[in-house]
Amino acid sequence: MTDDAPAVDALLFDMFGTVVDWRGGFLRDGPAIGAAAGVDVDWGSFADAWREEYRPALDRVRRGEVPWRNLDSLQAESLEALIDRFGLEGLSEADVDRLHHIWHRLDPWPDSIPGLRRLKPHHIIAPLSNGHVRLLTNVAKRAGIPWDLILSAELSRHYKPDAQAYLTALELLDLEPSSVMMVAAHEYDLEASREFGLRTAYIHRPYEWGPEAAASVERPDEGAYDVVVDSLVELADAVGAPPIA
Amino acid sequence: MTDDAPAVDALLFDMFGTVVDWRGGFLRDGPAIGAAAGVDVDWGSFADAWREEYRPALDRVRRGEVPWRNLDSLQAESLEALIDRFGLEGLSEADVDRLHHIWHRLDPWPDSIPGLRRLKPHHIIAPLSNGHVRLLTNVAKRAGIPWDLILSAELSRHYKPDAQAYLTALELLDLEPSSVMMVAAHEYDLEASREFGLRTAYIHRPYEWGPEAAASVERPDEGAYDVVVDSLVELADAVGAPPIA
Repeated sequence: MTDDAPAVDALLFDMFGTVVDWRGGFLRDGPAIGAAAGVDVDWGSFADAWREEYRPALDRVRRGEVPWRNLDSLQAESLEALIDRFGLEGLSEADVDRLHHIWHRLDPWPDSIPGLRRLKPHHIIAPLSNGHVRLLTNVAKRAGIPWDLILSAELSRHYKPDAQAYLTALELLDLEPSSVMMVAAHEYDLEASREFGLRTAYIHRPYEWGPEAAASVERPDEGAYDVVVDSLVELADAVGAPPIA
Repeated sequence: MTDDAPAVDALLFDMFGTVVDWRGGFLRDGPAIGAAAGVDVDWGSFADAWREEYRPALDRVRRGEVPWRNLDSLQAESLEALIDRFGLEGLSEADVDRLHHIWHRLDPWPDSIPGLRRLKPHHIIAPLSNGHVRLLTNVAKRAGIPWDLILSAELSRHYKPDAQAYLTALELLDLEPSSVMMVAAHEYDLEASREFGLRTAYIHRPYEWGPEAAASVERPDEGAYDVVVDSLVELADAVGAPPIA
């Protein structure tokens, strides 16, 4: 952690892996869906496989190989192959829909809401995710995430790390890049943010890909970003947001 | 009020006059700003005059006579003429800025937050205002308005009642028009909403233009919209949102 983190007016948060635990959502809801189809699935592996399709699917949109489509649409496409691969052909349409909508029902990491509650009185807080507006709204509403507003790559129709995703957010906030901090558990997101002049906070989330992968998630050097911490509560400490009385 | 208001997933709210009391903001903050310049101003008339410039300014953008500009920019332009007209040339730059930012610091009508708190557990709630995203964010943050997300004409760069303002909101919500209710104190907004298939709720706000104008604000017939009520609490009743225990 830097000793003097920059004063910022707004903090923007990556969602999947940074604020919410996507893998845990599948471990939580997968077994009941599998049982309905009489299939025993390794839901951690299922989640990992789906998430691995995420970046390539976004990149096809980013390269212009396919026109803009929101995350629901991209995830529905990648789900088809996973259903075959994991032997889930017996799922009813309703259960496929339940599976698909786990992405709309993810839980925050335990420190996320406590950290955001501390930040909110002093800063504008919003997601800036590749998830679309409705998905982010559903996740926040179900989990009680106290965003001031929902920002999304969808508002520019360009996925992170494309410039437009960040620049549209800055324009809507009517803020200079140096007054805004991007918060993420992924270096590619922070490297792009820094390139466009935003402040950066890295949140170390070694368990994003489950306990077995934790040891291989490298924590960057303290000086690599404006803030390098292990939780959103530590982020609140780092930017000087006082504990709630 | 209709006996069976339609079930909707989301309610979208006009802001100025419907959720917040713009005129009251000037009566509250104007006197201190005038005193700083040694000028005695009728702040109700000042507010009325500024608000009267609002629709023509938006209409110039809507007709394509000037390119898209956000509300801050349009209001700054109309403020210049008002400063002359009301003898406020002596204001410091900081006080002109304070005056301008009263629009970012408006208070809700007394029933607004109680009504929205009841609606929120059962519906997505968002503004859909001609105010820009940052202004709506500032108003909500200061007043504690519990929006799920901020929607604005700015997201389409088309002001209400242009179709794009409503259709972009529907697209971001990923909802059919019939699942969404527009809530406003102004018939032009509801007439446009209805044309695009949205449900409509009229909130009667006779004091929007001050007590002297109250008698001339006509309340539409009960059947003119899906809901015709006098407050957001009555709206919660009308759509069946139970009182908070």
